Amino acid sequence: MSAVESTPPARRGRGRPGNDQAAVLRAAIELFTRKGYDATSIGDLAKELGVTKSAIYHHFESKEDLLRLALDDALGELTSVVESASRDDRLSAYERLREVVRRSVEVLVSHQPSVTLLLRVRGNTAIEQGALERRRWLDDRLADLVRAAVADGALRADVPANLVSRLLFGMVNSLVEWLRADGSYDARTVADAVTTIAFDGLAIERR
Amino acid sequence: MSAVESTPPARRGRGRPGNDQAAVLRAAIELFTRKGYDATSIGDLAKELGVTKSAIYHHFESKEDLLRLALDDALGELTSVVESASRDDRLSAYERLREVVRRSVEVLVSHQPSVTLLLRVRGNTAIEQGALERRRWLDDRLADLVRAAVADGALRADVPANLVSRLLFGMVNSLVEWLRADGSYDARTVADAVTTIAFDGLAIERR
Repeated sequence: MSAVESTPPARRGRGRPGNDQAAVLRAAIELFTRKGYDATSIGDLAKELGVTKSAIYHHFESKEDLLRLALDDALGELTSVVESASRDDRLSAYERLREVVRRSVEVLVSHQPSVTLLLRVRGNTAIEQGALERRRWLDDRLADLVRAAVADGALRADVPANLVSRLLFGMVNSLVEWLRADGSYDARTVADAVTTIAFDGLAIERR
Repeated sequence: MSAVESTPPARRGRGRPGNDQAAVLRAAIELFTRKGYDATSIGDLAKELGVTKSAIYHHFESKEDLLRLALDDALGELTSVVESASRDDRLSAYERLREVVRRSVEVLVSHQPSVTLLLRVRGNTAIEQGALERRRWLDDRLADLVRAAVADGALRADVPANLVSRLLFGMVNSLVEWLRADGSYDARTVADAVTTIAFDGLAIERR
């Protein structure tokens, strides 16, 4: 269920027990998120894991390599959610949007460490710039779906579409701030809550 | 409209033109948010403003003093929103909750720098710990209002109340991540959008 389980299997198997590639990537994601990517060195990571720097270079070419894999993990999952919903011709724009929101929440819960890192990226390096560009592509697809659902008459037209997509993903992304600390909800409960609040609304009486 | 306009007038009037107390506090909030509070020194702040350190100590006792004033600005506004809604006996729990969400958005838009700083506080100092405690108090009042509105039959009961208050404020707090960069919405438009999405829902067809 953690971010590192989706690293390509082909890269595994060179590690020593307990300090294999997956564990190094997991520790790197945690350290990048806690200390910031710029402030973290391979030496810091080695110290955190209690191994030598060369043990890390055994698995990864560079710090950039670790960042790229971590961000690819989060972006790959989120991109796949958007692309698979877009391909399903049986669904209306509204149903696709609802599906994208639901499945994004599930990705966020199951890949929380790498998504948290993705959301903290500020674009200081080429890899971060590339990740921000892929995030903007995802945001644009979501805004397209909102506009299409409004055009179909399935979504209310009195809230600007760009504001809707910002707030929808704002609510989804806010999960990284508290979900781990809380720990008492599974992915399905949280996905149900987000989609119910956003699409059906909390109020029982319509106004 | 900025965070510093609510600093007590009694503290003003000692500054030199262009580098008065309000400008120092504004720059401190910006620097604390950008670099992190721990990583920012009074020397950094003086350099940023192009003044001497003693020019800053002319207005403020310490770095802690600046942090306390910044956090008090955000917390004072948010606490006042919750307390004034709670005092209004003419409103139902649902109406109070809706009012608290609406007015919190307005506070966030009008006091964005200090609220952004508040949301980044991690509790490394006594002042930060105190601020986190006041944030928890606010979260608890919001959760109380959600439970009271559910008990009144005005709010749907199929989403756990704690999850509702987390997600409501998650959506509100997400504004600090993008609102300034975007710049195209006023406080009322954003407050309308958040309350409409959260309480009335985006979908036109009920399911």
